[in-house]
Amino acid sequence: MSEAKAYAAFSAEKPLAPFTFDRREPRQDDVAIDIMYCGVCHSDLHFAKNDWGMTQYPIVPGHEIVGRVTSVGDKVTRFKEGDIVGVGCMVDSCRTCSACQDGVEQYCLNGFTMTYGSEDRQDGTMTQGGYSNKIVVSDHFVMKMPDGIDLASAAPILCAGITTYSPLKHHGVGEGHKIGIIGMGGLGHMGVKLAKALGAEVTVFTRSDAKVEEAKRNGADHVVVSSDQAQMDAVAETFDFMLDTVPVQHDINPYLASLKYDGTHIIVGLLEPIEPAIEGFNLVFKRRVVAGSLIGGIAETEEVLKLCADQGITCDVEMLDINNINEGFERMEKGDVRYRFVIDMATI
Amino acid sequence: MSEAKAYAAFSAEKPLAPFTFDRREPRQDDVAIDIMYCGVCHSDLHFAKNDWGMTQYPIVPGHEIVGRVTSVGDKVTRFKEGDIVGVGCMVDSCRTCSACQDGVEQYCLNGFTMTYGSEDRQDGTMTQGGYSNKIVVSDHFVMKMPDGIDLASAAPILCAGITTYSPLKHHGVGEGHKIGIIGMGGLGHMGVKLAKALGAEVTVFTRSDAKVEEAKRNGADHVVVSSDQAQMDAVAETFDFMLDTVPVQHDINPYLASLKYDGTHIIVGLLEPIEPAIEGFNLVFKRRVVAGSLIGGIAETEEVLKLCADQGITCDVEMLDINNINEGFERMEKGDVRYRFVIDMATI
Repeated sequence: MSEAKAYAAFSAEKPLAPFTFDRREPRQDDVAIDIMYCGVCHSDLHFAKNDWGMTQYPIVPGHEIVGRVTSVGDKVTRFKEGDIVGVGCMVDSCRTCSACQDGVEQYCLNGFTMTYGSEDRQDGTMTQGGYSNKIVVSDHFVMKMPDGIDLASAAPILCAGITTYSPLKHHGVGEGHKIGIIGMGGLGHMGVKLAKALGAEVTVFTRSDAKVEEAKRNGADHVVVSSDQAQMDAVAETFDFMLDTVPVQHDINPYLASLKYDGTHIIVGLLEPIEPAIEGFNLVFKRRVVAGSLIGGIAETEEVLKLCADQGITCDVEMLDINNINEGFERMEKGDVRYRFVIDMATI
Repeated sequence: MSEAKAYAAFSAEKPLAPFTFDRREPRQDDVAIDIMYCGVCHSDLHFAKNDWGMTQYPIVPGHEIVGRVTSVGDKVTRFKEGDIVGVGCMVDSCRTCSACQDGVEQYCLNGFTMTYGSEDRQDGTMTQGGYSNKIVVSDHFVMKMPDGIDLASAAPILCAGITTYSPLKHHGVGEGHKIGIIGMGGLGHMGVKLAKALGAEVTVFTRSDAKVEEAKRNGADHVVVSSDQAQMDAVAETFDFMLDTVPVQHDINPYLASLKYDGTHIIVGLLEPIEPAIEGFNLVFKRRVVAGSLIGGIAETEEVLKLCADQGITCDVEMLDINNINEGFERMEKGDVRYRFVIDMATI
């Protein structure tokens, strides 16, 4: 066993606080990693506050992890000491079902093991995440970080990046397509960059005039202020896709009306009931589709990391001292971050 | 001009009553048809009662029309006097937009012309449907009825048949797929037969034990009583597709839960707000899709007519004397028809 330093939530009401716990000795297929950076995702906050009713305390959040390999188990061949690697939202799955065999471990028929807050499949202990100075992960769920990528700003690719990239790829978004990106946060700003990288014409939908310039700086070809009905009317039936990154309830009908026939509205952020209700006619009369998507598979995550390295795509990040994690959570809750906090683990 | 005898609705409150009106002289591209049979679709009732707020009276419903060609315009080459033909829900479209060019006239960017209740694109008169002894329709929207098909029971293929066939084809339903058919009315019973014809394994979902045998008689491989939670639990995450033909509000979440990851829930009957609301997690966690679909294109309708002729598929119909149309409407409203009334136009 190896002692790890971390920040953990101990209850829904209290701020995160320092926590010391044991990481397991590497198994034969394990990779032991010293964590260098960890992105701060909105899910971390939901878990810390038990918003989804499944949290067991104490819990160490964090699933956008970049670090250096310190040792590997006997059977590990893909990694060696000193390699720079990443770990995202998953650390295990059944590996035998059709989904795992198809490389979409996130849809594992037996349920994937989350990087934090899941039971380890072998010893039943609770997994703990990346707000920590070290982690031990089975090699299949460890990704090589491509050479030349900026490591701190690449960390959020492991969740925010793959969550937007996976549906773009799955639905074949590319040249000749017009896509709207709804929401300009951690996911949305990556959606803009990745949709552009795939060759699509990108329009950001934002509720406020204030974000128009910001969206263009992030590479948007166009910006529509969704609270302006005239602007919405002007884009009716013009989009092939919408990538909806908004994590709170909102009316998707105006966005459906902006899709062409056969257009697809992709939801990646909204887990709650879709209210106001979707109007059936918005789907039926134009053969439109509403689709969900969850993070992405391991191979696909390596693919987006490589794409980002090749094209110089990074997340816009603000570095965070882990001792300020609670302040970071507060600012994230208010949307006061452009667009992702990344913990510099040297501060632990 | 040519005098046509018909039944029309004159207001939302009153029963349909006899009506005499003029059909236009055939234009160069027109086909004049003596109507032999016309199916009675639930939409006819909605239009007659102005449920969708767009009805102009008097209106002659009917868009599942089979008849005999009596004359054709100078430029018509596909049809000649004596041919047996069909007319479905559309009698015109812009013919130049991308949808029309792609053979999905039902998604015409400029709006298709409905068989009844639309303005004719050339003379601005209101189109009148098939509860009538004759009709004049532009040749592109007239379909040849295949030899050997039973004409009366084929009439509903022109709406109920194509409405279920089109999404099955579009989504690639076929061998190796498990599909659930929700609702066992005019659309649902055709959905069962057509999904079977395409090679899928078909399960009917019904709320009542009473319909189990009936569903099996219609060719269903399995039946699930959706009000029985144990039966629903037993089929969780097992379907590739759901074809949802229910025209009134209902909770689709239990059906979403019955889909595998990447499963598709196809809505053809529900135009109203989808309530209770779709749970976002039901889409996101399994990359599921909710898709709409509207009738089908002209070429595709000829395709399904041919498939039905080749495989001996017919609608289950009850012949109706047009003088009893109001009684037919009343019974249809109560679901008291297995599964489609077809007017024998000899009774007019």
